[in-house]
Amino acid sequence: MSSDLYRLTATEVSQKIKAGEISVQDYATSLLNRIAARDEAVQAWAYLDPAYVLEQAKALDAIPQAERGPLHGIAIAVKDVIFTKDMPTQFNSPIYANNAPALDAGSITILRKAGALILGKTTTTEFAATTVGPKTRNPHDPNRTPGGSSSGSGAAVGDFQAPLGLGTQTGGSTIRPGSYNGIYAFKPTWNAITREGQKIYALILDTLGLYARSISDLELLADTFAIFDDVPPPTNFTLQGAKFALLKTMVWPSIGPGASAALDKATSLLRAHGASVEEISLPEKFNDLPTWHATVLASEGRTAFLPEYAIAKDQISPWLVGHVENCDKISRKAQVEAFDNISFARPEVDELLGKYDAVLTPSVPDEAPLGIEKTGNAAFCLIWTALHTPVINIPGFAGENGMPIGISLVAPRYHDRRLLAVSKVVGEVFEKEGGWERKV
Amino acid sequence: MSSDLYRLTATEVSQKIKAGEISVQDYATSLLNRIAARDEAVQAWAYLDPAYVLEQAKALDAIPQAERGPLHGIAIAVKDVIFTKDMPTQFNSPIYANNAPALDAGSITILRKAGALILGKTTTTEFAATTVGPKTRNPHDPNRTPGGSSSGSGAAVGDFQAPLGLGTQTGGSTIRPGSYNGIYAFKPTWNAITREGQKIYALILDTLGLYARSISDLELLADTFAIFDDVPPPTNFTLQGAKFALLKTMVWPSIGPGASAALDKATSLLRAHGASVEEISLPEKFNDLPTWHATVLASEGRTAFLPEYAIAKDQISPWLVGHVENCDKISRKAQVEAFDNISFARPEVDELLGKYDAVLTPSVPDEAPLGIEKTGNAAFCLIWTALHTPVINIPGFAGENGMPIGISLVAPRYHDRRLLAVSKVVGEVFEKEGGWERKV
Repeated sequence: MSSDLYRLTATEVSQKIKAGEISVQDYATSLLNRIAARDEAVQAWAYLDPAYVLEQAKALDAIPQAERGPLHGIAIAVKDVIFTKDMPTQFNSPIYANNAPALDAGSITILRKAGALILGKTTTTEFAATTVGPKTRNPHDPNRTPGGSSSGSGAAVGDFQAPLGLGTQTGGSTIRPGSYNGIYAFKPTWNAITREGQKIYALILDTLGLYARSISDLELLADTFAIFDDVPPPTNFTLQGAKFALLKTMVWPSIGPGASAALDKATSLLRAHGASVEEISLPEKFNDLPTWHATVLASEGRTAFLPEYAIAKDQISPWLVGHVENCDKISRKAQVEAFDNISFARPEVDELLGKYDAVLTPSVPDEAPLGIEKTGNAAFCLIWTALHTPVINIPGFAGENGMPIGISLVAPRYHDRRLLAVSKVVGEVFEKEGGWERKV
Repeated sequence: MSSDLYRLTATEVSQKIKAGEISVQDYATSLLNRIAARDEAVQAWAYLDPAYVLEQAKALDAIPQAERGPLHGIAIAVKDVIFTKDMPTQFNSPIYANNAPALDAGSITILRKAGALILGKTTTTEFAATTVGPKTRNPHDPNRTPGGSSSGSGAAVGDFQAPLGLGTQTGGSTIRPGSYNGIYAFKPTWNAITREGQKIYALILDTLGLYARSISDLELLADTFAIFDDVPPPTNFTLQGAKFALLKTMVWPSIGPGASAALDKATSLLRAHGASVEEISLPEKFNDLPTWHATVLASEGRTAFLPEYAIAKDQISPWLVGHVENCDKISRKAQVEAFDNISFARPEVDELLGKYDAVLTPSVPDEAPLGIEKTGNAAFCLIWTALHTPVINIPGFAGENGMPIGISLVAPRYHDRRLLAVSKVVGEVFEKEGGWERKV
């Protein structure tokens, strides 16, 4: 039914458009209807102009078959810290209210060229740099946060308002909303996708992130962004005989009952399907990784927010003022040591991760907390952002209140495609047998 | 004489404006006259609108004394890979001809807030990423290159068309033009100044660079950009008893007679003034630093130029097409190893550098070569860009043809202010006794 098109994945929609079964306008209309019906409850959008979306859809329909790109007509929600030349980019900052330079981020240039329909801009915490939630509500429970800072993209994809979304991650801003909204979230290897035109918080940490409701859709995006491993991923990966590890990491005391139970279940499911799951730990010398992350974050933030501090320090979060004023008195020596210590850890952790088909680790402590004022705890994501490894949140589990909980799969740097291939098989099992029921 | 104002340094002009001796309009007029007289010979500008410059100058003159910033009325030339909201930003790329989004780079926001007069946009090689020279000629000999990729900023400051300039460095793009144009060039510690709104080539290498004709002017800019060391720099540094080292590096075979003689003279001068100069070398395990730099450059360029490749691959340099297509077949394994090996080298090299007041190393092989088609050799700069250390080019020496040659002083990361303080004293000696005579 044409009115249900919004429920399809990008891959499914793409097939229908290619086959001439539906037009991009049909599809866009279905999405816009879904958004109109759900926007009051979810409020995922910082900017969305339905008339302009239809105008773009019409233009896409006018492109001859032979000139169409691989994402032709596929809609994507864009986090409002990524420049779009035809829509405002406001960073959830009063300094940038109605800010609309005629500039596309590098990622948007690539997506447009591939034929994507840029649907609108989604909410974010201020500059994707604080944990103060925007107006957005979790689609699965309006009394709960969708997470952050990629709040709107996570909620929009979770609520079937868009099949694909762009987020960013400096701490846990892509993976956490992925878990809270019950969707697949992919933080690729650092700098595997250009960050041109994406607001800077910390250069060595910031990573563009991708949302979808299927791994095939993430693979479509990985193709578009030319993310390739040295070795093509396995096409026949099966759980029978596969080798996983469970890594609780040094922040395990932050775990809640929801994620703990989800990890137990995940482990049982993998074993039941014939895989081995070994419990591993990181060398103790890496116990300070979260502290090193915090040090690098604050000291790179000191550089990043000096412009806003200079022009309007009363209009930026105290958290960011603190970075610029270096309120934690982080010395340059400490900054450089943290930066170097993380660098030393990367190849060693890669080597450990490389021994397995993938390593399981929590995405979050538990299901999305009540309230939309705070976006939740990023503790389990931080170290992977610093280590530059690809991470994929796989949905499928439920918390005490029936809210979604995901598990992270991690692989060594630039093993993104292998991780996607493994995640596809794992995701099928977790989604089917993990126990979470999607109700939206 | 008001007509000679263009010859002053930023610090000198600032004092005159503060004292009410001259207006910003007087100063801007003098610079515009200089530019009008010299532009045909030098061609440093990608965009400059004299009427708009005067309009800005008038607006600055209207600001009450109490509200004026530390750079009030000081003109600065901006490399055309850095966004300016009121001028085009064209990257010397046909893809971006007349490109003019209403966006200021973070550095420009800070400069404007400090009261700087954004004079115009200066020429660059394509995306600051190739060695194919733009139209610009060396002010000291129009038959020679001003270097690159910061060609226009280097030439403009060298030719007294602007007291200050912004450049960038991914290989040797700030330091090389500094040497070729006979000016001070400062590549600060990586990420000490925000790169927001500066075109990306390689995230882990790209650094904003600063040009001036005096160290005091660079200190003024360092203040503006809030670059601080852990320990305030010495205020009474003298060469008597100071400790320097001479580091020829693994690329010493690239040296020419000009820079070799300049280094000999520099060493003699420092010794004659009571300093010690010890010859040191890097551990052999770092001999591959230039190769690691090349590997990281190409593989990060693969990510950076995918957007331009996607939309107009026939309009970008074959060099950049080669990055995107990975024509050198650099594996992800090699990419990650190069990235990590550079990371491992940083603290060790810092420790070595930290034993001296500063370390001398060549800026370039020799004086600016004949022809403007190629921008010269960056061999001596690459490793410092990769190592993230601050580098300052100090002018004062001359090649066989009377063209300027500078020497680099290097210090550990985030010892930028100490390096400036040392360079001030060293620069006075090199400029006075080094033998180069400025003729423009």
